[in-house]
Amino acid sequence: MKFYEMAAAPNPRRVRMFLAEKGLLGHLKRIEIDLKKGEHLTPDFAALNPMKRVPVLELQDGSTIAETMAICRYFEEQFPKTPKLLGETSFEVAHIEQWLRWLEFNFFLPVGMAFQHLTDYFAETKVQHTEWGEECKQNAEGFMGFLDKHLKDNTWICYDRFTAADITAFCTLEFARVVDIRIQPEHKHLQAWYDRMLKRDSANV
Amino acid sequence: MKFYEMAAAPNPRRVRMFLAEKGLLGHLKRIEIDLKKGEHLTPDFAALNPMKRVPVLELQDGSTIAETMAICRYFEEQFPKTPKLLGETSFEVAHIEQWLRWLEFNFFLPVGMAFQHLTDYFAETKVQHTEWGEECKQNAEGFMGFLDKHLKDNTWICYDRFTAADITAFCTLEFARVVDIRIQPEHKHLQAWYDRMLKRDSANV
Repeated sequence: MKFYEMAAAPNPRRVRMFLAEKGLLGHLKRIEIDLKKGEHLTPDFAALNPMKRVPVLELQDGSTIAETMAICRYFEEQFPKTPKLLGETSFEVAHIEQWLRWLEFNFFLPVGMAFQHLTDYFAETKVQHTEWGEECKQNAEGFMGFLDKHLKDNTWICYDRFTAADITAFCTLEFARVVDIRIQPEHKHLQAWYDRMLKRDSANV
Repeated sequence: MKFYEMAAAPNPRRVRMFLAEKGLLGHLKRIEIDLKKGEHLTPDFAALNPMKRVPVLELQDGSTIAETMAICRYFEEQFPKTPKLLGETSFEVAHIEQWLRWLEFNFFLPVGMAFQHLTDYFAETKVQHTEWGEECKQNAEGFMGFLDKHLKDNTWICYDRFTAADITAFCTLEFARVVDIRIQPEHKHLQAWYDRMLKRDSANV
């Protein structure tokens, strides 16, 4: 299967970590798309994903799946004997999705907004609203305090076992460095969780 | 099960439509939370959902699920004999999730941003960035053009059958009126789909 990505971007990384934890990373033939050069804006790429974003998975029959969590869920369903990272029971599936959404809307998206509006990466192609970017950055930092409290009594984000929620939190945290958001000295529980994450083989794929 | 919502808000409506299509709406004991009065900001509500947002589902054992799609997925998994609105096969599940994400990130979220930054609903409690709100409004309008083209050759958004993607598109479109985003005369296919949606019983729950 072809996997269109930019290796350094956080969303493709979420998919790679997800597949590495399932032992499925070898299924991907990775194809690098350079966002800085605008390679995602070509007609060829828009035919793969009209939203012009990475990652995109192309199956052997040529059909495509865009969106990080859609790609992850495809592998979760298609390879049911691999470790479940999106839950076993109805409640687990819902609880993990709840956390994924919390992390995406309150952490990943604000960090992405700060990246878009405060750095020069997209400065030539997008209008920047600096005050909005600053507010998003503050919101992301606030969410890290919430996450730190949650991790006081939890080894992992859901159920004391590793799930897709940990992957999203970790990839967001690593991405957040680009806007100078870092774990603060008082965030001892978040730091301890981050240190546990760094020890996983999937942290380096 | 208790369902904390604000009836007029788009996200609780997505859940209600989802359950109505499955014939499960009777499972909910609906509890109205007045966002305008700040009833979602109380310590009692924050104990149900620390993100202080509706909807929240409270199960009979007192456990809670927040986030619209997490609640929908709980019912999809828990009641497998009801109509599948999130897909049957691995590819269908992924394809529908892709569309849900496209609709959420490119339509629902920009409309929500326009609502937050251009109307006076949250003017007392949130800082407003008007130019950003205007840009979001334009992006949402642009996505409607994409949706119109897609619906030229499709009765429903995914697979020529009704799915959760139609629910999200419909509830967003109805919500979008608050920021004066409406189907344009040239959007004939979107209009035809919208007319089909209005005929479903679930459009009125």
